[in-house]
Amino acid sequence: MALRFAHDTLGQRLLFGSGLAARHVADEVARLGASRIMLIAAVFEQEIAEVVTANITLTVTYNDVVQHVPIAKAEDARRVAAENTIDLLISVGGGSTTGLAKAIALTTGIPIIAVATTYAGSEATNVWGLTEEARKTTGVDARVLPVTVVYDPELTYSLPVELSVASGMNALAHCVDSMWAPRADPINQALAAEGIRALAAGLPLVAQNPTDEKGREQALYGAYLSAVAFASAGSGMHHKICHVLGGTYNLPHAQTHATVLPYVLAFNAPFAPDADARIAGAFGATSGLEGLNELRRVLDAPRALKDYGFTEANIPEAVSIVLPLIPADNPRPATTENLTELLHAAWAGSTPQAH
Amino acid sequence: MALRFAHDTLGQRLLFGSGLAARHVADEVARLGASRIMLIAAVFEQEIAEVVTANITLTVTYNDVVQHVPIAKAEDARRVAAENTIDLLISVGGGSTTGLAKAIALTTGIPIIAVATTYAGSEATNVWGLTEEARKTTGVDARVLPVTVVYDPELTYSLPVELSVASGMNALAHCVDSMWAPRADPINQALAAEGIRALAAGLPLVAQNPTDEKGREQALYGAYLSAVAFASAGSGMHHKICHVLGGTYNLPHAQTHATVLPYVLAFNAPFAPDADARIAGAFGATSGLEGLNELRRVLDAPRALKDYGFTEANIPEAVSIVLPLIPADNPRPATTENLTELLHAAWAGSTPQAH
Repeated sequence: MALRFAHDTLGQRLLFGSGLAARHVADEVARLGASRIMLIAAVFEQEIAEVVTANITLTVTYNDVVQHVPIAKAEDARRVAAENTIDLLISVGGGSTTGLAKAIALTTGIPIIAVATTYAGSEATNVWGLTEEARKTTGVDARVLPVTVVYDPELTYSLPVELSVASGMNALAHCVDSMWAPRADPINQALAAEGIRALAAGLPLVAQNPTDEKGREQALYGAYLSAVAFASAGSGMHHKICHVLGGTYNLPHAQTHATVLPYVLAFNAPFAPDADARIAGAFGATSGLEGLNELRRVLDAPRALKDYGFTEANIPEAVSIVLPLIPADNPRPATTENLTELLHAAWAGSTPQAH
Repeated sequence: MALRFAHDTLGQRLLFGSGLAARHVADEVARLGASRIMLIAAVFEQEIAEVVTANITLTVTYNDVVQHVPIAKAEDARRVAAENTIDLLISVGGGSTTGLAKAIALTTGIPIIAVATTYAGSEATNVWGLTEEARKTTGVDARVLPVTVVYDPELTYSLPVELSVASGMNALAHCVDSMWAPRADPINQALAAEGIRALAAGLPLVAQNPTDEKGREQALYGAYLSAVAFASAGSGMHHKICHVLGGTYNLPHAQTHATVLPYVLAFNAPFAPDADARIAGAFGATSGLEGLNELRRVLDAPRALKDYGFTEANIPEAVSIVLPLIPADNPRPATTENLTELLHAAWAGSTPQAH
């Protein structure tokens, strides 16, 4: 098949190093020539944020960070930025914190330095999201892409192991799904494979010891790559399924991803041998599924949807909602029958098997 | 060792597809809203350039393309751009053509769509070069990075096999040297490994049949990645050696790279096991050197510097010039003794062996 693709590489500066966040932030503030700085950090991360911004002068600190960026909160933050004639935003936190900075940048064009403290990956994308009366609007805009991302693995040491593993498995799902998503291309696939390699190396070390330096480095680096690959490739079969399961049956996000992923890999791998070879190579295993199953075993990852509130009786409805959402160019065409089989296996937690 | 790096990802749009150049160029002209377009193409590529720009209206066509971009030629081209109030440059050609477009962009900020017809890779970097009285000046500037690169493997079908292989081996050297160059980081290494995979897959097919679609696709894609990785990682040991050999002894560029590369790989690999594992994996071989030697065998690549005018008597002088240029953090520290050994083996063409 002829190689044909459009790939947008997002221009961004990455500064990576344990214990170096404060120095890197100060370097970037100087390089950008900023003088009126607004720090955005949730109350519970204020202490980390103070360490990170110890070498610079802040004009204002903003702590009113709420999940999913409600539009009213975004407007309040924009007002504060305008009143203080801010010329640089520094966000210190996870997806919601980065998201609030993006909401300000979206309407003002003020540049962002994003200091990431989780594996959410929002800092590496040009995607923004806002909610109004429980309805979420998302979009893509060049202005919301942070000009600089600062990664300091030490800032993630306090992320609990269970959350780290769940969030890391979510990042892994982004990598695997990038292999066959609608805008999959070899660049995304190479970055996703590198992300799998890093996550598979890092997460077991983090699970053993949440302050393992190498484990935290590899997990954070892998989470970055997963965001880059996923933002470029788009949502594939796995994310379409998980989105429906989460939205319709209120299943927990991370556990749903961790449970469903091997079944989607088993479903697609025989129809996408090149992608499977990349996944296998990244795991250092003979097949992608073997590598993923071994990682899940080591991490004691979630195994069955029935443990999270999904019932056997939900399967027919779930299949009918999911089926029309599966991308037309998914490696194995989805049918009512094979989707039912997939969801039944994921519900029961039976061993994922390639067809 | 702690993971610590700064990585600048350059934002750029890539459009890739055989036979699609004219359509992709027209799409981009529309997207950018350009109306005053200057085409830059060498006389010998005018025919290709006409095909590529068949769907758009050109304001002016500029054919005075000379190697190494002499400053007088750059100034003439800038004058033409100014006189015609140009708002978009389209370059169709190899490194010299892209280089002339960059020279205009450097002082005017006019955006570039670069249509590449060789494996030179300049289209993927923010590096510019100008020559004045045989002295070359180079620099880095965000304005010279093409906003869009259009890759159409069919445009490379007329590139002769020998030149394709030599140029492809040069790209391969960029990938390998990126593994341990001064700004090497895991992102560069992952992209370089993907470049090795693509070049190793494509070049043998091109050598057998210069119009092999898959071969041309993989070689062009690999050349792109080699440029991205090399521009970010900088010059490592291999390029320092080849630069001296080319500049001091006037050895031919591509042949020198192809000959020296396995000796540098043999020199560094035992001291850089992670890099060697990436190279080996990309070749699908048990070691990087085994993979490279097999590719050189298939391609009947150049084997000895003595075949290109380098003499045994040149070795001591060459070593004394090269030694201070080898990066301090090269995996294996260079000494007069081990560099002499390396150059002697490359001169004689003896089998490259890891130490």
